[in-house]
Amino acid sequence: MKIDKKSINSNKQTNKKTSKNISFSTKSDSYEVLIRDDFNDLPELISALGEYSKIVIISDDRVISIYGNELKKSLSHLAKGDDVLFITFFNGEKYKNIATVMEIYSKMIEENVSRDAIVVALGGGVVGDIAGFVASTYMRGVDFLQIPTTLLACVDSSIGGKTGFDYMDKKNMIGSFYQPRLVYMPLSCLMSLDEKDYISAMAEIIKHALIRDKDYLSYIRENKAKILARDISTLSELIARSVEIKLGVVSADERESGLRKILNFGHSIGHAVESLLKYEKPHGECVSLGIVSASYISMKLGYINEDEYADILAVLSDFNLPIGVGGLGAAEVFDELFYDKKTRAGKLNIICLEKIGQASIRDDISDELIKEAISEILR
Amino acid sequence: MKIDKKSINSNKQTNKKTSKNISFSTKSDSYEVLIRDDFNDLPELISALGEYSKIVIISDDRVISIYGNELKKSLSHLAKGDDVLFITFFNGEKYKNIATVMEIYSKMIEENVSRDAIVVALGGGVVGDIAGFVASTYMRGVDFLQIPTTLLACVDSSIGGKTGFDYMDKKNMIGSFYQPRLVYMPLSCLMSLDEKDYISAMAEIIKHALIRDKDYLSYIRENKAKILARDISTLSELIARSVEIKLGVVSADERESGLRKILNFGHSIGHAVESLLKYEKPHGECVSLGIVSASYISMKLGYINEDEYADILAVLSDFNLPIGVGGLGAAEVFDELFYDKKTRAGKLNIICLEKIGQASIRDDISDELIKEAISEILR
Repeated sequence: MKIDKKSINSNKQTNKKTSKNISFSTKSDSYEVLIRDDFNDLPELISALGEYSKIVIISDDRVISIYGNELKKSLSHLAKGDDVLFITFFNGEKYKNIATVMEIYSKMIEENVSRDAIVVALGGGVVGDIAGFVASTYMRGVDFLQIPTTLLACVDSSIGGKTGFDYMDKKNMIGSFYQPRLVYMPLSCLMSLDEKDYISAMAEIIKHALIRDKDYLSYIRENKAKILARDISTLSELIARSVEIKLGVVSADERESGLRKILNFGHSIGHAVESLLKYEKPHGECVSLGIVSASYISMKLGYINEDEYADILAVLSDFNLPIGVGGLGAAEVFDELFYDKKTRAGKLNIICLEKIGQASIRDDISDELIKEAISEILR
Repeated sequence: MKIDKKSINSNKQTNKKTSKNISFSTKSDSYEVLIRDDFNDLPELISALGEYSKIVIISDDRVISIYGNELKKSLSHLAKGDDVLFITFFNGEKYKNIATVMEIYSKMIEENVSRDAIVVALGGGVVGDIAGFVASTYMRGVDFLQIPTTLLACVDSSIGGKTGFDYMDKKNMIGSFYQPRLVYMPLSCLMSLDEKDYISAMAEIIKHALIRDKDYLSYIRENKAKILARDISTLSELIARSVEIKLGVVSADERESGLRKILNFGHSIGHAVESLLKYEKPHGECVSLGIVSASYISMKLGYINEDEYADILAVLSDFNLPIGVGGLGAAEVFDELFYDKKTRAGKLNIICLEKIGQASIRDDISDELIKEAISEILR
């Protein structure tokens, strides 16, 4: 596969204002996260990674209908028809399962995809997790490239190398740690996102600020209007800062044996709510509720004061994220937490804020305080 | 889980003559390969690795019926009943598939196995490959320990971190690279091996000598009688030298992008024969045939002389390994090679001997010479 330099150069119109390159390295890997306007310099970047016998684009039916043609057109400068293989599955978390994985394996085998291919994930978190798992296990691993098309995937799932699928009603039960060769973020994709999906991602972004960077929290509040209007250079800055925070944590603890757990801030109680509501409430909204509870615990422990707690509630509200939920009882949320505690690892970790911008992992929070923190979000 | 030091110490009778510790490290991992008489110091070694909530022993029905009780007894010094979970599947290559993997996942989930568990493979190559894949993907990876119970698994499959299973009639199509925390080889297990299985492993051992160590080849020939009699200290020496050779190659190229391919010496034509015979001939016997063909090519290229070629045939015959096979035509073996060439990677690599003890990867061997080398093994 040879790259057609002429057509790429004439096609390249990378916007310097929004383009950002962020480097990442762990003990075993290093790669770049690139923020771009669109798909313009993707072909030459793939070409720089290696000479691939096939480019396997894995996506879902919804995403491919919106961005498939643009990506195809972009890749036409690099690869001829047969070199690009599109494999799509149905959109939605319920297809994040072993059947989808096996279907993708089968199609790749039928199309004689060999070890010198590259798998490209085009989509949100589900696509990235499934495609990453396939890339990590097909012929014991082929190269992998992430193109996140949602704000949540940009700032969260595409970063850190977690792959996987759900099994026996358990989220991400089977998976691997597998770093991509490159993460490419075409911001144009974020313009067509549903408002609900866009806003949901803000919970993770606010989480990043709360656990690692007080100034970032100020930036988010000050730029509320531009963020909500999806101003592209603000978005570029926002994503870059969140990616840097997540990469910083992940590079220190790739396999989640310690520090990486702070990324679960707001996720314990958030996940219990999400599970009880049968995953019908967006993940980010549940994380928002979890942030409220975990911040409440941090306040009660004397780490943050009442004003800071109120500020946290205010910034969540600024982005129309919920700080309360109806229809649930404190006991059932607590039991759900306890169920997880009993059946997964030994102890229940709660991530607390030691102050705004700094988190720690605690396994000694009393049942009473946890119950109080749960009541805080129930309407 | 606490170790009962008293009972372990009183139980420990490690034979200094046969015990060997070999260290291994790659860019990302390091661990030890331990050669022992039996299971004596296994509990304290597991205890030294970490405090595990569960020890999950994965094995097949045949192996567990022979060694299950011994292992259980050994572990009783370390873990109480509930802490040890035995999961077995049917013996044989045909169970090395996704259905077996999913069954194991399900049992682990039903038994609430968490991320702080350790998976132990007790068995031959199939068990090691399946258990390793499960360990690498269950909750994105749990600790893994290999206890190979066949000579072939000791010198080959337990070393190097390859895991996987067959899919759509393709060998090891899905898998991962995942290094164990420890490889523990209780030589007592090798005493009950079928003669055919024992001998089959000698093909890989002879391969190690041919590609990396001329002196080792002399050692093998000189100790033929002791090896065939399964003298335990000779076996310990033999396994240690093979493990060191394989680890040396693997640590230089964990993901098989270059050097590691020399371990495929004898495997291209050997695999074509194995496939045409529907995997009914033991792997080692097919490798023996492949070694003859590849050595023939090396001779015709002027790398080794006729005497050296005759010596290779002699050492294989010393161990009752075949140097010829009936019932196959040269054209079908060649086509099978060519089929693989077309459908897997681009070019067909043939590993040649540059001299006894040194191998190189060649992709420029003429069709004519390959056909001649195939004819050499057909009766």
